[in-house]
Amino acid sequence: MKEKKLKIDACFSPHLYPVYKDNDSIVVIIDVLRATSAICVAFEYGVEKMIPVATVEEAREYKQKGFLVGAERNGLAIDGFDFGNSPFHYMGDHVKGKTIVLTTTNGTQAIEAAKGAHKVVIGSFLNIDALCSWLLSQNKNILLLCSGWKNKFNLEDAVFAGAVTDKISHGNDNYKLGDACLALMYLYQMAKENPIKFLSHSSHKERLAALNLKEDIRYCLTPNQTKVIPIYKDGALVKL
Amino acid sequence: MKEKKLKIDACFSPHLYPVYKDNDSIVVIIDVLRATSAICVAFEYGVEKMIPVATVEEAREYKQKGFLVGAERNGLAIDGFDFGNSPFHYMGDHVKGKTIVLTTTNGTQAIEAAKGAHKVVIGSFLNIDALCSWLLSQNKNILLLCSGWKNKFNLEDAVFAGAVTDKISHGNDNYKLGDACLALMYLYQMAKENPIKFLSHSSHKERLAALNLKEDIRYCLTPNQTKVIPIYKDGALVKL
Repeated sequence: MKEKKLKIDACFSPHLYPVYKDNDSIVVIIDVLRATSAICVAFEYGVEKMIPVATVEEAREYKQKGFLVGAERNGLAIDGFDFGNSPFHYMGDHVKGKTIVLTTTNGTQAIEAAKGAHKVVIGSFLNIDALCSWLLSQNKNILLLCSGWKNKFNLEDAVFAGAVTDKISHGNDNYKLGDACLALMYLYQMAKENPIKFLSHSSHKERLAALNLKEDIRYCLTPNQTKVIPIYKDGALVKL
Repeated sequence: MKEKKLKIDACFSPHLYPVYKDNDSIVVIIDVLRATSAICVAFEYGVEKMIPVATVEEAREYKQKGFLVGAERNGLAIDGFDFGNSPFHYMGDHVKGKTIVLTTTNGTQAIEAAKGAHKVVIGSFLNIDALCSWLLSQNKNILLLCSGWKNKFNLEDAVFAGAVTDKISHGNDNYKLGDACLALMYLYQMAKENPIKFLSHSSHKERLAALNLKEDIRYCLTPNQTKVIPIYKDGALVKL
């Protein structure tokens, strides 16, 4: 009898997550520009815990209680908080051993949507190889949850999900690719030679370029800057 | 001053439509395998009106009132109705001048979701050139609404949406492509040489192949079999 294959699929919006959710998949949260990249950097620099919250109000309550808080909306850091969602904000000794609360336009909404899943981990180009090795070791179905932009599809999260699909399924017949992953793998194959150029017409890249965030973009698209895999446990992200 | 561009974007699921909807876009309903292909064929063969309904119960009520009714769920025609959603069911004099009620797994759900839009039209490979010429003549924003499969992304609707994007934007700088359309245009460019082969791993094609519907697939992927553009008006589809 033919062994049943594992599934890998992708969901393009937190709003669509209820359609894809099951009790069995590992969910990878993707917000390449920039929340999940920033989270990976924070753990690389020794943050102990990150508490994702959906609203600025919740973030403000934590701030009033004395927590360090990162808060971003529409690409900009919000006044009165300690960080935005640039990865560069989380590089250095100032995060080591700390608990940081985080709210962002898209990424933390995706975590909120998926928090009941079997396992929820954080993916970005910065930890892609470590992430894929771990996913392969788990022998479970995989759902790549793209944060998108305000619940719409975005190109950079899609390209990253395609890269993960490519790495997971390359020379490996154990996974059955959902239609979204099939499409994304083709997309990634077109993007991989020069992701920055490929993304140059994407809406969010234009948005960030207008905010002078070219260095952020370049960094967020650089693979394998860390081996950490942040995982969601008991209401917070911790190092796996 | 630079003239403001028109927008073309794509939505991958009726469930996601509320995120994309606006008061101003023409919505193209896409369910290539097979509802929107069947609808185009029915109008080519002279059907006067098609009433899309979301549930089998509504379809049954119409049937009891004496209407001709097409009903499909999970790729199969439902017993007790006049048609399924194969385009071949709608070819011939038996549809000429008739009103036909239709309920399908995906396509009629997308029509239901979008029915409040400015204009709602039906797209398939069968009417693609006529559709694109008309869209260009309208000088309006365009939203390509893929029916998908049970609210999940599917490959064939995405490839068709990419084909429309490609035709609309080829040598035409008037449209600003949303991220989804950017991705789909790349996808279409990879698929266009041999769409049947390209779609050979898609979940729905496998589903239909298992039902011995290869002829349906081949026909539904054949461009320009008709110039009709079905449009939704006052609760029913009519010929534009």
